Amino acid sequence: MPQLRIALAQVNPTVGDIGGNIELVVHAVEAAAAEGAHLVALPEMVVTGYPVEDLALRLSFVDASRRATTELAARLGAAGLGDLAVIVGYLDRQSGAADRVGRPKGSPQNSAAVIADGRVVAHSAKHHLPNYGVFDEYRYFVPGQEALVVRMHGIDVAVSICEDIWQDGPSLAARAAGAGLMVVINGSPYEANKDDVRAGLCIQRATEAGCPLAYVNMVGGQDELVFDGDSLVVSAGDVVARAPQFRSDLLVVDLELAAACRDDSPTGGALTVRRADLGTSVVETYEPRPPTRAPWLEDEAEIYGALVLGLRDYVAKNGFRTVLLGLSGGVDSTLTAVIACDAVGPANVYGVSNPSDWSTRHSVDDAAELARRTGLHLDTVEIGELIETFQKQLTLDGVAEENLQARIRAVIWMGLSNQHGHLVLACGNKSELSVGYTTLYGDAVGGFAPLKDVSKTLVWKLASWRNASAVERGEQPPIPENTISKAPSAELRPGQLDTDSLPDYRLLDDILDDYVEQDRSAVDLVAQGFDQDIVTRMLRLVDHAEYKRRQYPPGPKISVRNFGRDRRLPITSAWRETAR
Amino acid sequence: MPQLRIALAQVNPTVGDIGGNIELVVHAVEAAAAEGAHLVALPEMVVTGYPVEDLALRLSFVDASRRATTELAARLGAAGLGDLAVIVGYLDRQSGAADRVGRPKGSPQNSAAVIADGRVVAHSAKHHLPNYGVFDEYRYFVPGQEALVVRMHGIDVAVSICEDIWQDGPSLAARAAGAGLMVVINGSPYEANKDDVRAGLCIQRATEAGCPLAYVNMVGGQDELVFDGDSLVVSAGDVVARAPQFRSDLLVVDLELAAACRDDSPTGGALTVRRADLGTSVVETYEPRPPTRAPWLEDEAEIYGALVLGLRDYVAKNGFRTVLLGLSGGVDSTLTAVIACDAVGPANVYGVSNPSDWSTRHSVDDAAELARRTGLHLDTVEIGELIETFQKQLTLDGVAEENLQARIRAVIWMGLSNQHGHLVLACGNKSELSVGYTTLYGDAVGGFAPLKDVSKTLVWKLASWRNASAVERGEQPPIPENTISKAPSAELRPGQLDTDSLPDYRLLDDILDDYVEQDRSAVDLVAQGFDQDIVTRMLRLVDHAEYKRRQYPPGPKISVRNFGRDRRLPITSAWRETAR
Repeated sequence: MPQLRIALAQVNPTVGDIGGNIELVVHAVEAAAAEGAHLVALPEMVVTGYPVEDLALRLSFVDASRRATTELAARLGAAGLGDLAVIVGYLDRQSGAADRVGRPKGSPQNSAAVIADGRVVAHSAKHHLPNYGVFDEYRYFVPGQEALVVRMHGIDVAVSICEDIWQDGPSLAARAAGAGLMVVINGSPYEANKDDVRAGLCIQRATEAGCPLAYVNMVGGQDELVFDGDSLVVSAGDVVARAPQFRSDLLVVDLELAAACRDDSPTGGALTVRRADLGTSVVETYEPRPPTRAPWLEDEAEIYGALVLGLRDYVAKNGFRTVLLGLSGGVDSTLTAVIACDAVGPANVYGVSNPSDWSTRHSVDDAAELARRTGLHLDTVEIGELIETFQKQLTLDGVAEENLQARIRAVIWMGLSNQHGHLVLACGNKSELSVGYTTLYGDAVGGFAPLKDVSKTLVWKLASWRNASAVERGEQPPIPENTISKAPSAELRPGQLDTDSLPDYRLLDDILDDYVEQDRSAVDLVAQGFDQDIVTRMLRLVDHAEYKRRQYPPGPKISVRNFGRDRRLPITSAWRETAR
Repeated sequence: MPQLRIALAQVNPTVGDIGGNIELVVHAVEAAAAEGAHLVALPEMVVTGYPVEDLALRLSFVDASRRATTELAARLGAAGLGDLAVIVGYLDRQSGAADRVGRPKGSPQNSAAVIADGRVVAHSAKHHLPNYGVFDEYRYFVPGQEALVVRMHGIDVAVSICEDIWQDGPSLAARAAGAGLMVVINGSPYEANKDDVRAGLCIQRATEAGCPLAYVNMVGGQDELVFDGDSLVVSAGDVVARAPQFRSDLLVVDLELAAACRDDSPTGGALTVRRADLGTSVVETYEPRPPTRAPWLEDEAEIYGALVLGLRDYVAKNGFRTVLLGLSGGVDSTLTAVIACDAVGPANVYGVSNPSDWSTRHSVDDAAELARRTGLHLDTVEIGELIETFQKQLTLDGVAEENLQARIRAVIWMGLSNQHGHLVLACGNKSELSVGYTTLYGDAVGGFAPLKDVSKTLVWKLASWRNASAVERGEQPPIPENTISKAPSAELRPGQLDTDSLPDYRLLDDILDDYVEQDRSAVDLVAQGFDQDIVTRMLRLVDHAEYKRRQYPPGPKISVRNFGRDRRLPITSAWRETAR
């Protein structure tokens, strides 16, 4: 059987930075050539970054992507890299197509270009456009109608894009065309445990196609999405090679593949097969190298990795170097600080402690201990006199007085942020944000919210895991033990505990998982055994807090349904689930 | 030709309030019956309110809509209203359909039910699902494949839903089926001048269908959308009847229509025709009443009406009675206050003046004069001592110091809001928000932002129009003349003017219209004659301010592209238009 050395370039593009992304592609192609690869594949829409959202509706942007892709081909040819076949994702538009409603300036397509010999030899548009969860591709793209099969070195290589393998069709078209390899380029965002689903799916589609499948995914953070990499090659029901998650990589794999044997273009299935031929001859027999296979991470390590990468890239891609956050000594702000230290280095993390008369001694001490253990900067700004000065004129009480403290702290953080150029981090977790236990323009301020999609029970798990992993490496655990073990409190009045008004977080998180992530009804929840009054009260809190979530900063999606693109509810809504 | 008296019930439903919406429907049907109507049509998804967004993915919600629709039919029959044919929009789901990606629990449909004789006689799902601008219907719905034609009183009535008439197909199916009337039920949101487009479109589709067309639209505010009503009957190339914009109405129209003459179900077009027959006989000849035709409003009156209705409904549907806003004496906060007075009454409007050392005398006087003219409440809370107390600890300067003032004011407003239950209004205009001239957690705080989609030049126009319309009615103009005529300034440092760092607002708004609303490129803008440096600088400001817009409260859409559902750009984006 003919041999082929393929390289999957798991790179980290930036949305809109077409020039910079092209440099990433060129470096990856050079590295693949240095490794002796015959084919290098790069992620979906690597030229533009992904997702570009409404930039796809901007004609100047679409044309910049098309032009950059053509120029890339010429540049690779001029650099003597024309022998290497390159598959890149880019933003294209249908030529000569009629205008469509909402897409007045040409019809954008999410496309793959096959580059060889200094030119774009063939291109093909994504067939299946995801339009659920975080995806809105019907808003932007016209689907492709053809399956592309490119002959290279005596092998027919079928090219697909991301969602194409989450639906039926392309794998069957690849089989019908007699493909020896399926290459799938992806921009597939992270969710906890998605790596398992992904590997299973690749194996299923490879089996349907009757050939190995090479899956290349991008890596990096983009607003609320984290692309985790996890590029794979599967063959004969097994993962034969795997790139690590959460970092750039070039996965080089030697394959023996079925020789091309057909020249027709089967039209039986939903997709017409279009063929291209690079005219390259079968590779001379060589000694294959053993493939590398990155180990699978345990759950906490994987989620923690996603949070660190999401924050690091939000900071860097938005032109920041430093972050600032309020440190209360509680587990949320402490875990956020440790994630920040891992993401941008403790020298770039500025903590601010803002004790009030109601702050307990250990809150102040725990924040100081965190600073000592990690090396982050810690500043203290007392708020007692500020509270008094406001209260002289406003005389607020109850929740209004509690919120005043939280908002005074926020004014301090934002002032320091404006003065020194720090990105402010909001430290709230998903459980709090679900039930609205957050002060709008108080603890909710910030440009990014690392724990936005992390439930309170998961916050504790991640904190314990982070400490344990430090111990394993012979380091001091960064998080003071007292921070993990103490009862959660907002400390906005004396002796206040979260459990004064909320159920135990394990119970709350179970209810929230069913209601927020699974869309289960109150009737279902009660039938499962949850207390009817608690269910009714918690669901009311969730529904009522939508206006707060709408103004909350973005944070990395790690669950099946985050607050953001995944869950889009009206603020004005009288719908209330009833348990009867 | 057979006669028919139709009633178009332009009602104001609330999203999620299925019980309340059913009451609206019943009252409208009773009123139509009292008027002697034979057919009454209500808006798209009137049972659930519209748009329901991700509530459509909640099975308990879909089933509540289905059940309510069935029960509505029984209730109307039991009330002796079974002779009257009723067309209502509701949320349905495909029965027995296979699960789809992202729609795991049945496949929701945006449907119309025809009710008569105490039961749902026929139903039909929307064919064309809008998925551009503010619409995401591919996310939620499965399209219908059949055109519904219902025979009543010897006339074949074709039933369509909203977007169906913005696309080809249904009008041709109505003609093929020999329909004598097309009824279109709508949830069509307001945009300036959309009424003209809508009337023209109805005339075009009526001509294609070869019969009159009755168009019923909902009215009311729903988060950032305003439904303006503007229900119409068109015939023979003319608007023969029209309901007013921005208020509930029952438009009753007598029509003579072509008798039903065919019984086949043509299948030639894209849609199969499905027929139902109510078995009602031709109406005895009666003397028709002359139709009413609401006058068309001038541009400013129409936009102002949309802003008032949007705010009124946001307040009421979210359970508020009163609003609070900072009054600087400037035109933005003043116009917002006057809109609020018109929306909820001056007794429910609380203005707060927060002078600092840099506030000019006339700012304070103009706010007092506004309160005197309108009767709204005005409170003054000085911020000098608060600034000093913060500065003792923070020593901020430059923009950080300017923002500090804006944020101290916001803490005061939010404190009063929490204490007294007022909804806080943000007063920024679209021009400011475009270029980021707003302080996050300062003047940007609030639950609703009436001027969010109103450019600065339009703010001035509306202020002048509102004063002139008061004069026309013999009232005192509410807005102090000095507020309209003075040069705009944020007054965050001595002598500051907006024109210190921005071009004249007329020039700025022209650039913003091209860039934000039309997606034109920098190259296009310079080719049109705009100065290259100004274009480059303004486009940078717009691009960079996306993170501020993301945390800004919702406000009523009045333009072709608002900041919100209409324009979805990444925060993290390195794309920068260049003018060369």
